[in-house]
Amino acid sequence: MIVRPRPHWLRMLFVWRGSVLLDITPQLLWTTAFALLVTVLHGRLFQWKVPLNFVPFSLIGLTLAIFLGFRNSTSYSRYWEARTLWGALLNESRSLVRQLLTLTDAPAAPDLPVARLIAFVHALRHQLRGSDPVVDLARLLPPEDCTRLQAAHFKPAMLLLMVGEWLRDRRRQGHFDPVLAQAMEVPLGRLTDALGGCERIAGTPIPFTYSVIIHRTIYLYCVLLPFGLVDAIGPMTPVVVAFIAYTFFALEALGAEIEEPFGTAANDLALDAMSRTIEASLREMMGEPPSTASAPAPGLYIQT
Amino acid sequence: MIVRPRPHWLRMLFVWRGSVLLDITPQLLWTTAFALLVTVLHGRLFQWKVPLNFVPFSLIGLTLAIFLGFRNSTSYSRYWEARTLWGALLNESRSLVRQLLTLTDAPAAPDLPVARLIAFVHALRHQLRGSDPVVDLARLLPPEDCTRLQAAHFKPAMLLLMVGEWLRDRRRQGHFDPVLAQAMEVPLGRLTDALGGCERIAGTPIPFTYSVIIHRTIYLYCVLLPFGLVDAIGPMTPVVVAFIAYTFFALEALGAEIEEPFGTAANDLALDAMSRTIEASLREMMGEPPSTASAPAPGLYIQT
Amino acid sequence: MIVRPRPHWLRMLFVWRGSVLLDITPQLLWTTAFALLVTVLHGRLFQWKVPLNFVPFSLIGLTLAIFLGFRNSTSYSRYWEARTLWGALLNESRSLVRQLLTLTDAPAAPDLPVARLIAFVHALRHQLRGSDPVVDLARLLPPEDCTRLQAAHFKPAMLLLMVGEWLRDRRRQGHFDPVLAQAMEVPLGRLTDALGGCERIAGTPIPFTYSVIIHRTIYLYCVLLPFGLVDAIGPMTPVVVAFIAYTFFALEALGAEIEEPFGTAANDLALDAMSRTIEASLREMMGEPPSTASAPAPGLYIQT
Amino acid sequence: MIVRPRPHWLRMLFVWRGSVLLDITPQLLWTTAFALLVTVLHGRLFQWKVPLNFVPFSLIGLTLAIFLGFRNSTSYSRYWEARTLWGALLNESRSLVRQLLTLTDAPAAPDLPVARLIAFVHALRHQLRGSDPVVDLARLLPPEDCTRLQAAHFKPAMLLLMVGEWLRDRRRQGHFDPVLAQAMEVPLGRLTDALGGCERIAGTPIPFTYSVIIHRTIYLYCVLLPFGLVDAIGPMTPVVVAFIAYTFFALEALGAEIEEPFGTAANDLALDAMSRTIEASLREMMGEPPSTASAPAPGLYIQT
Amino acid sequence: MIVRPRPHWLRMLFVWRGSVLLDITPQLLWTTAFALLVTVLHGRLFQWKVPLNFVPFSLIGLTLAIFLGFRNSTSYSRYWEARTLWGALLNESRSLVRQLLTLTDAPAAPDLPVARLIAFVHALRHQLRGSDPVVDLARLLPPEDCTRLQAAHFKPAMLLLMVGEWLRDRRRQGHFDPVLAQAMEVPLGRLTDALGGCERIAGTPIPFTYSVIIHRTIYLYCVLLPFGLVDAIGPMTPVVVAFIAYTFFALEALGAEIEEPFGTAANDLALDAMSRTIEASLREMMGEPPSTASAPAPGLYIQT
Repeated sequence: MIVRPRPHWLRMLFVWRGSVLLDITPQLLWTTAFALLVTVLHGRLFQWKVPLNFVPFSLIGLTLAIFLGFRNSTSYSRYWEARTLWGALLNESRSLVRQLLTLTDAPAAPDLPVARLIAFVHALRHQLRGSDPVVDLARLLPPEDCTRLQAAHFKPAMLLLMVGEWLRDRRRQGHFDPVLAQAMEVPLGRLTDALGGCERIAGTPIPFTYSVIIHRTIYLYCVLLPFGLVDAIGPMTPVVVAFIAYTFFALEALGAEIEEPFGTAANDLALDAMSRTIEASLREMMGEPPSTASAPAPGLYIQT
Repeated sequence: MIVRPRPHWLRMLFVWRGSVLLDITPQLLWTTAFALLVTVLHGRLFQWKVPLNFVPFSLIGLTLAIFLGFRNSTSYSRYWEARTLWGALLNESRSLVRQLLTLTDAPAAPDLPVARLIAFVHALRHQLRGSDPVVDLARLLPPEDCTRLQAAHFKPAMLLLMVGEWLRDRRRQGHFDPVLAQAMEVPLGRLTDALGGCERIAGTPIPFTYSVIIHRTIYLYCVLLPFGLVDAIGPMTPVVVAFIAYTFFALEALGAEIEEPFGTAANDLALDAMSRTIEASLREMMGEPPSTASAPAPGLYIQT
Repeated sequence: MIVRPRPHWLRMLFVWRGSVLLDITPQLLWTTAFALLVTVLHGRLFQWKVPLNFVPFSLIGLTLAIFLGFRNSTSYSRYWEARTLWGALLNESRSLVRQLLTLTDAPAAPDLPVARLIAFVHALRHQLRGSDPVVDLARLLPPEDCTRLQAAHFKPAMLLLMVGEWLRDRRRQGHFDPVLAQAMEVPLGRLTDALGGCERIAGTPIPFTYSVIIHRTIYLYCVLLPFGLVDAIGPMTPVVVAFIAYTFFALEALGAEIEEPFGTAANDLALDAMSRTIEASLREMMGEPPSTASAPAPGLYIQT
Repeated sequence: MIVRPRPHWLRMLFVWRGSVLLDITPQLLWTTAFALLVTVLHGRLFQWKVPLNFVPFSLIGLTLAIFLGFRNSTSYSRYWEARTLWGALLNESRSLVRQLLTLTDAPAAPDLPVARLIAFVHALRHQLRGSDPVVDLARLLPPEDCTRLQAAHFKPAMLLLMVGEWLRDRRRQGHFDPVLAQAMEVPLGRLTDALGGCERIAGTPIPFTYSVIIHRTIYLYCVLLPFGLVDAIGPMTPVVVAFIAYTFFALEALGAEIEEPFGTAANDLALDAMSRTIEASLREMMGEPPSTASAPAPGLYIQT
Repeated sequence: MIVRPRPHWLRMLFVWRGSVLLDITPQLLWTTAFALLVTVLHGRLFQWKVPLNFVPFSLIGLTLAIFLGFRNSTSYSRYWEARTLWGALLNESRSLVRQLLTLTDAPAAPDLPVARLIAFVHALRHQLRGSDPVVDLARLLPPEDCTRLQAAHFKPAMLLLMVGEWLRDRRRQGHFDPVLAQAMEVPLGRLTDALGGCERIAGTPIPFTYSVIIHRTIYLYCVLLPFGLVDAIGPMTPVVVAFIAYTFFALEALGAEIEEPFGTAANDLALDAMSRTIEASLREMMGEPPSTASAPAPGLYIQT
């Protein structure tokens, strides 16, 4: 995720980081080169003048707008829903820690379930990104927990179960009123929902056919476009084609990037930073001293 | 559901699986052939030159865009709501299993209700797809449960009732505090909601009249279009008509496919895979060894 | 509600049931006749050539698209919200029956509250459609309940109160734990919400002014359109005007139909069928033998 | 709120009540007069021919469509959310009255809290409309309650607190189980949410800048439009300008009207009628005889 | 936030406060000056006539509309969600205070937790705006609370924990039934959600790439536009370019303003006023005399 103060309007025209120009350079160069060729040849292919004007392009624009608008808003919805689910991780783990501290009367502090909660957040991040959670788990949990988790395929779900088991043991020992156990089921259930919601977004792409149809329509459009423009605007054709192609390609590339919000591309969610924030907030509630994580330097920075 | 890494932009232009080209080939061929005929005849029908230009098509485009955009976003909403409901099946059954394991103090493990929960998921899948659940039920449940279910018309609802009955029997025997019975009503209620939500989507199509009007408008548009283009772009008419018709037909076909998300078309939801995931996750929570289901091979694969 | 398998693409062009052609035939004929007249007169009114071209129509198209798109999506939202509320009736009454069967330990079975629940659904249907619930109530309830309901203006709300009274009486007799009474308040509250939601949709139309402005804009557009087209496309004018008017009128008629989803038009909700389904599902949970309602014949059928 | 059966399509063209024609007559007349003047002068200002055609207007149409569509759908969302919040008032007060009747075992009937609930609804209406609630409060509540409320700035919030105080007093006297007090917190909390939601809509307008930009763009558009049309359609210019201006002005006026849904304009919410309905429904649940409010006469009527 | 009665339609054309004209004056002047230059040069750059017409601009308009419409509605969604979250702060703190007054039977009044609640609201405001909460905290809380908070990084979360601690202490002393402690967990959990929701909006911008692409597209569009218009409308080119540029720049500036709704720009949320309202409402429920805050003067005023 790119975090930076909004640059001056003039400087923003020449920003490089955060534009998707890098990703779409090859396509853009090919398309512009082709438009240049068509312009030089005055729209002729092997002596045959291709008869096109702007009309087909405004008609095709109709479905293209529907497809692109749909793709764009759907991708963003997935991005924002994913962000909201990670917000729920923060909210519900805060609520659960507050309840562990104020509703249980156990002789010992609830260090173990809070450690499991923090491990849950890190394990979910690793599951979503396909990375290895071993280091984070070993840092946070006692060895027997780590052993049990090693065998588990659904590690975050197992960690929530282990939080519940700690509560079961305390309840059986009479350390708190069963009626309050019920209150703690609420954040546990919502954490389960947030976990499943993340798995749902990670596991269910936008139907692949949409990408195919949008991709083809855009490229066919850009290939035909120079023939439709060259008679009217002559040498400006490559400029205009490059401009239009840039907006199409950028929209498509950005959509593909935020459609899978748990990745590590520049515009994806900052799961690392969010996990650290949740850990810091829960530790603070437990009365631990704040970590000495330095604040990010001002200016542009990218969180992952 | 098609799951595959995003292909290179060049290769994506020639993808065959996952485009809906196969479904719309006949219409597309007829439309193109007709456009070709009109081009050859220079827009004449029996010596009469049909006087059309692009204007009517941009005016009709207005309502067409409303219809198509509506159809597209509504179909996708149904698809995504269906997916979210199946996500709720996973979340709430996980929550319920966690509660069965940590809130009840029954002498025996809650094997029976968990088996009924798993059977509930499979039975719902079979109900939504109109297939026969007998094999799955016999695999999961004791014979007396199977007998009772055989007579039932609403099998998944019956299975949730049977989970409730197990809880009732344990509670009457004093195996857990009634106040905790209340906590387990929450996931049971949400599973009932998810069940009813799936039945709602499966049983209530988008009003049929929309499909009729969209269908007619698209076809009339494509039939008239060559007459409107032939004077301006001559021999390019069939190319442009084929292009525009492809985007219309593909949008309509894809909408019809994901509108009924519980089917078995290429872009429908992977109910089989999701049922197996839920079963595996619940079994893991119960401490059963993970099944040996092999991971899917890399590259393109289609889940059903 | 029209339920039918999707016809072949060719046959779908000539479907009669389910198109709204019948409703808009008079307007369509008048508009087309007027366009024909304008064409014959070459756009002259009493020797005065009306000077119009396509430009005003694409400018007006702007607000028309906003109005029509808004009307269309708002009408559908009402339709789908109404359907979801009826889905909630099914879900919550199933949940409540499950709780009546598994959370109460009354000596007698909860036949009376379940009968009142079923009567609630039917009474709501009658209230929404303005029909007389007497026959359904007499079929389902004991005479004293019917007498009490006869005087009530808000019958479904009264029936939910009567379900609550049965629970109150059982609780006072000590037939179940008060803590479980609380659990049953959840579906009772949601049924109250669904009831109020249906009353809200039935009682609050889309602001009437929208209909007026849309209606006028469409008709003025269609009356002026032939003057704008006749110079460019001559004898094709009536064809194109009829086509455009068809999409406008159909969109408006369909919007008006599903805007009030509790009516009995072809595209309205199948309240009869849904009430019967809820009754059948609740009876099955109570252990009653399934009714012998025959399945609908394959092919097209319309539910009310 | 205008409630009327949908008129015949022909009659609907000449409806006066419910169109916003009255509100926009001055602007419309000035705009049309100006267009007439431009037409008479053949687009000349002091011998200078203003060179404009339709192109700028279709380009400006782009942002105008975004602004107007946004304004329209946002205004309607506010209207419908406000309606839904008032629906919640009905639902939750019904639920609370049902609970007061079935969950409390107080010796006396819960007349006082129900009176406070009814007063809450009326007080909220008066707060939203800035009118004086004294008469309604005196009609419903005992004098000491009125005195206490007179000093309160947030009267509806105070009334909910007073409902809670009645419950506290009954609970302290042991008239009902504390566990059931918890159940009654649910509708009380939701009534608090509905109250705050209404205050939010009433207190937070759509950012004023939107109105300014839309307003300016529309008027500049309509002032320039005759210069762009007069060369192409000559004497039809005033007709077309009046038509386009009507759709713009009507869209803006209607948006401004339903944006503040608690007002008393023709399309605003019928708070009076809704308050009376809630009062009637709650009284009926308490066993009071239905009031003799006569049904509205058929045909058009306006509720406030 | 700008609060003012809607001005007369004529006066609204010349409103200065609340338009974003001030923010976009430089860009607008440069763009118009450039268009003027192009007009004077008749579209020539160093003797070379730039060949452009309106066609490229209506094609580019396609993606521009998607981008701008998306940006606009997303920004407003963030604004409204932020407002709704602050509404939840009011609702849930009212609910919690009601519960503190009616569910606890502590000998002393709940002055301390209510003070902490009020401090929570102010601390959240300061956190969102990056200002220093010390003065507000010292005004509201006892010194030991202030000391504890000084060290905390997440002050509002700590304050909610401290409310929970007060409840824990009262519960351990037997001042109220544990079952009622559970009821108070509901608003505490929702306040945690609202806190996390505000942090989410403040910490997660709309992907920066959107801003970059929109910004570039708009400026390139406005720079090229004069070349496309000058042949058709000659001296009117600067007027039309200024008009179109105004709508683009205003839309972009307004989007950037409300995208970060917790700032202090003219259209941002009035966090100050809302905090004071919450404080006043809670104090009134506690029986404190209303503060003497004078009502705002009629006419235009800006809340921060």
